[in-house]
Amino acid sequence: MIASSESFTPVSQVGEFGLIDQLRTVLGTDMPDSLVQGIGDDAAVYRVGDGRVHVVTTDALVEGVHFDRTFVPMRYLGWKAIATNVSDVVAMNAEPRYATVALALPNNVSVEQLETLYAGMAEACSRYELIIVGGDVTAAPKLMISISVIGETAENDIVYRKGAQLGDLLCVTGDLGAAAAGLKVLLAGKKGFEPGGDGAESSQPNLAEFAYVVERHLYPQARLDRIQYWRETGVRPSAMIDLSDGLGGDVHHLCTASAVGAVIEAGLLPIHVQTFKAAEQYDADALSLALYGGEDYELLFAVSEADRQKLDEDTYAVVGQVVDASEGVTIRDPDGNVTALEAGGFEHF
Amino acid sequence: MIASSESFTPVSQVGEFGLIDQLRTVLGTDMPDSLVQGIGDDAAVYRVGDGRVHVVTTDALVEGVHFDRTFVPMRYLGWKAIATNVSDVVAMNAEPRYATVALALPNNVSVEQLETLYAGMAEACSRYELIIVGGDVTAAPKLMISISVIGETAENDIVYRKGAQLGDLLCVTGDLGAAAAGLKVLLAGKKGFEPGGDGAESSQPNLAEFAYVVERHLYPQARLDRIQYWRETGVRPSAMIDLSDGLGGDVHHLCTASAVGAVIEAGLLPIHVQTFKAAEQYDADALSLALYGGEDYELLFAVSEADRQKLDEDTYAVVGQVVDASEGVTIRDPDGNVTALEAGGFEHF
Repeated sequence: MIASSESFTPVSQVGEFGLIDQLRTVLGTDMPDSLVQGIGDDAAVYRVGDGRVHVVTTDALVEGVHFDRTFVPMRYLGWKAIATNVSDVVAMNAEPRYATVALALPNNVSVEQLETLYAGMAEACSRYELIIVGGDVTAAPKLMISISVIGETAENDIVYRKGAQLGDLLCVTGDLGAAAAGLKVLLAGKKGFEPGGDGAESSQPNLAEFAYVVERHLYPQARLDRIQYWRETGVRPSAMIDLSDGLGGDVHHLCTASAVGAVIEAGLLPIHVQTFKAAEQYDADALSLALYGGEDYELLFAVSEADRQKLDEDTYAVVGQVVDASEGVTIRDPDGNVTALEAGGFEHF
Repeated sequence: MIASSESFTPVSQVGEFGLIDQLRTVLGTDMPDSLVQGIGDDAAVYRVGDGRVHVVTTDALVEGVHFDRTFVPMRYLGWKAIATNVSDVVAMNAEPRYATVALALPNNVSVEQLETLYAGMAEACSRYELIIVGGDVTAAPKLMISISVIGETAENDIVYRKGAQLGDLLCVTGDLGAAAAGLKVLLAGKKGFEPGGDGAESSQPNLAEFAYVVERHLYPQARLDRIQYWRETGVRPSAMIDLSDGLGGDVHHLCTASAVGAVIEAGLLPIHVQTFKAAEQYDADALSLALYGGEDYELLFAVSEADRQKLDEDTYAVVGQVVDASEGVTIRDPDGNVTALEAGGFEHF
């Protein structure tokens, strides 16, 4: 009954990815034949027969860490909790099917607020054609929403982080940095009403002016539409990851898994005009938001030139190219200067 | 951006089961053909082809609600988090395959403690032959472990809460109330060291004397062994549920789902001698612990007399009989007095 460990290493020394790696190590490598991919990609993959596979992913949202209830409406929170998990399924090139929801509720959440949260989840389920099949509700000091989503596809259709080939183009869907820009706008709005803020209308951000980036933060869209379009077009990326941490970190994940390097072209990054405006107004740098802001939930994918030519130009942006691992992961500015691209990214601890 | 609800109904007015029911209602009843069972049983059931089904369940453990880190060692906590979810899979008569783990960690949990937690999970995974395929680690004010387990079996082998037939025997595996008795022993031990307690060795419970019940609380066993034995013996219960809330509450769940009543025989309930001793020493009633203590994670199952005769007597105890719904759920004491059996059970809110 005596705890076996004497020393105390704070989790901050290891970090989120280190802690997940450690879990993988403790659990060993004795995998059943049915398991195609365990911990280490956007979702795990296992065979269910007839050449089909299921994928499963889990993600938790914790109040005070991932969201602030003072400016995130419950309906959006419900949507986001589902959509961010669907994004991981989509990043495997699979389609969402079933979800389980574990809710931990503090006593300052009312039944009415919970109904609104549920309604947001239901909207997302309807949009992404998945169904919540299991739930657990418990008390807790802070609101926490833990969701698992199970998806399905043919085993041959699965796209991993690994698989990017030398010469492939690196592309993204949508634009980058908008979710982080939206968060800056929302935080500025909150600050105006805090002690020391003047609370005046005049100090409030003009949400209409920033409607696009605020929506990108509150109401992220999993790119199920894109993988469905690729399927119709006969395109299969060679490697893929969803952009939850930010391009800077996620391109490293993809390159490490694929054992390749990458050159990102700073001048090619798709950045919305509102992201530039918000960056200017709130003392941020639009390029940094695009690289490290995170939570865009767009897809970063590697694709051959031949496959790329099948795609409608409006559906992606080329942001770089796959190079040999020895060249590392770099970013080239519009003047041609090449520097190492730091992984950066968001760390909770 | 304005929250739509004006009134504030505390979640305690609805309770855990009410909140889950509400989730089911909001999500509607538009079920895909592949879904055999949604929210409302120990686990959801969906078809994966070739006459096989998968089941999925989710459960969260929250510090201060489900466990107290001051007397629950991390290794046991890791074990219990997996075992309790496996129990829900087993209660569908299915075998566990894959798990996902979402961990929310306060900064007073060290890397060393986390390794011990992982080791306990790994032990349970090894025992129940399942593998953790996905993980998420995040910061949080309190330790929280949210797990989903996916299991598998043939569609024809699934046993639901519904399905109990008039005249079936109601049986349980193992003994009842031991986990709750063990918790009483542990709580008494903790109290001796609190302000006002004397902290003396003499006031500490003799853990050796109560080793069995303490272990039943810290180290619950999912009854995978029993369902495997039934499969070998050619026995299939007509209805089943795992005893997480306590027999009193769980027999109501089974009866409601099966649209039947039940008579429980108080004199037949299997109660361990240490449960009686702990009840006596800590001012509790052994029958109440057996009915409402919860967390035994044994199986309550309805079985025909013909199937019952195939079972080794050491593997179950008859605790009552299925009767017509109009007779309700009652308990008969050894003197023959019959009273309504309250659902009771544990409510977090």
